[in-house]
Amino acid sequence: MTYCVGLFLRGGLVMLGDTRTNAGVDNVSTFAKLYTAGVEGERALCLLSAGNLGITQAVWNRLQEGVLLDGETQTLLTVPTMFRAAQLAGAAIRSVFATDGAALKAQGLSFSASFLIGGQVKGGPHRLFLVYSAGNFIEATADTPFLQIGEHKYGKPIITRVLTHDTPPEDGVKLVLVSMDDTLRTNLSVGLPLDLLVYRADSLALSPVRRITADDPYFAGLREGWSGRMRQTFRDLPSPDWL
Amino acid sequence: MTYCVGLFLRGGLVMLGDTRTNAGVDNVSTFAKLYTAGVEGERALCLLSAGNLGITQAVWNRLQEGVLLDGETQTLLTVPTMFRAAQLAGAAIRSVFATDGAALKAQGLSFSASFLIGGQVKGGPHRLFLVYSAGNFIEATADTPFLQIGEHKYGKPIITRVLTHDTPPEDGVKLVLVSMDDTLRTNLSVGLPLDLLVYRADSLALSPVRRITADDPYFAGLREGWSGRMRQTFRDLPSPDWL
Repeated sequence: MTYCVGLFLRGGLVMLGDTRTNAGVDNVSTFAKLYTAGVEGERALCLLSAGNLGITQAVWNRLQEGVLLDGETQTLLTVPTMFRAAQLAGAAIRSVFATDGAALKAQGLSFSASFLIGGQVKGGPHRLFLVYSAGNFIEATADTPFLQIGEHKYGKPIITRVLTHDTPPEDGVKLVLVSMDDTLRTNLSVGLPLDLLVYRADSLALSPVRRITADDPYFAGLREGWSGRMRQTFRDLPSPDWL
Repeated sequence: MTYCVGLFLRGGLVMLGDTRTNAGVDNVSTFAKLYTAGVEGERALCLLSAGNLGITQAVWNRLQEGVLLDGETQTLLTVPTMFRAAQLAGAAIRSVFATDGAALKAQGLSFSASFLIGGQVKGGPHRLFLVYSAGNFIEATADTPFLQIGEHKYGKPIITRVLTHDTPPEDGVKLVLVSMDDTLRTNLSVGLPLDLLVYRADSLALSPVRRITADDPYFAGLREGWSGRMRQTFRDLPSPDWL
C-alpha cells in the first residue's frame, strides 16, 4: 500500500507521499514515489504513484523516454499544457498495460497503478490530476481541492474538515502531515520516510523535495502536538447529560 | 455499508450503529442494526450487525427461535456465558450459510455478515466479541478495547488517539459519536439515525436504546463543537518554518 495526497490551493500545490512498498508483510522496502520534472521558468511537474511498483516505475521510465500521444513522441518536458501532461501519463499507463497486462493477468495479478500529477506549464495555470490505471483521469477543483491515492480513508476526515482552496500552502503542509500521521498510525503498509514537495503558483520552479524522517523535528513536534491537543479538545467537549 | 462500533470499558460497554442499508445508491432504506436480549438481574446482551440484510436478519431470527449448539437448542436467553453467546451467534451464521450460501453464490453474491456481540451474563464479566461471516470470532481486551464492523476506517483514527480501557462510559459515548460523525461525513452508505446503547458493568440491566436523529441536540452540538475546535486546534499548531 501507499498513501499519497495532493492539495490544489490558490497559492500552489502541496504533494506528499510515503515511501513504503511491500509484497506481503514480510517483504517491506523503501522506494520513493515522488518524481519531478521541470525546466526553471518554463515548467514544473510532480508525480506521485501508488500501486504495483513494477508498473509505476515502468510508467515513470516511459514518461522520460517518451510516449506516443496524438502521433508524436512526447515527454513531460515537451507537453504544451498540464492537461496534455495528464493525457501523457494516461498514455504511458496504457502502453505499460499493452506490454505487461496480459502476463500479469495470466499470473492472477491485477493491473493496479494510479498517479497524482500536479504542476504548471508556462502560459497556463497550476493544476492537479488523478490518473487511474485505465489511463483516464479527473482534476481537482476549488470545490474539492485535494486528491488522494492508495490508502486514503484514515487521512481523509481531517482534510475534509479543514481544507479549502484558500488554505495557505504552509497550512497545507501542516494538514497533509497530520493526515499522513493518521494513516501511519493505522496502516503498517504506509511508512516513513515521507517525500514532500511544495510548488508556489506561477513560480515555474521546483523547490527541493523535502525528505521527512522520524527524526524530523517539525514532523515529530507536529505529531506530538496534534495528538495532545486532540485529546485535550476531546476532553473539553461536553459529555452527554442524559446518561 | 454500515458502521458499528463497540467499546469495551472497565465501566461497561458502549454500542453504536447507524441504520442505513443500501442496494446500490438508488435504493436506500432505514433498518435498525442494534438488537437486544435480556432478563433483568440475570443477563443483558446487545448485537450490532453489518453486511447483507437478508443474512443478518435471518441470523437474528434464528438466535431468537433457537440454534443448535453442543447438541442443544439454545437462545441468547439460555446460554450460560458470553463466550457461549458468541459461539451461538457463530452457529446461527453457519446455519444461515448452510441454508442460503449456495444460492447466493450461484447468483454471484458473497456471503457477507459480521456482528458485534456484547453484554454480561450473571456470574461472569462483561465482554465484547466480533463474530465474522465464517462464524469464528475475536474478543476485545484491555489492550485493544474496541471493535468495529462495516466501514471502519474513517472513524478509527480518533478512537486510537483517545480511547483506553479506563475511559469512562460518558466519554465513550462522546467518542463513538465523533467517530461516527467522521464516517457520516465521508461515506453516503452510512446514515442517520443512530442507535446507541450504554451498558453499565454488573448492572445486568438493559437501559433503553437511544435513537439519535439529526435533530438530537447533544449530537448536533457535539458535531458542531468538534468541527470548530478541530479547526482551531489545527490553526494553533505551528506552521513549518522551513518553507
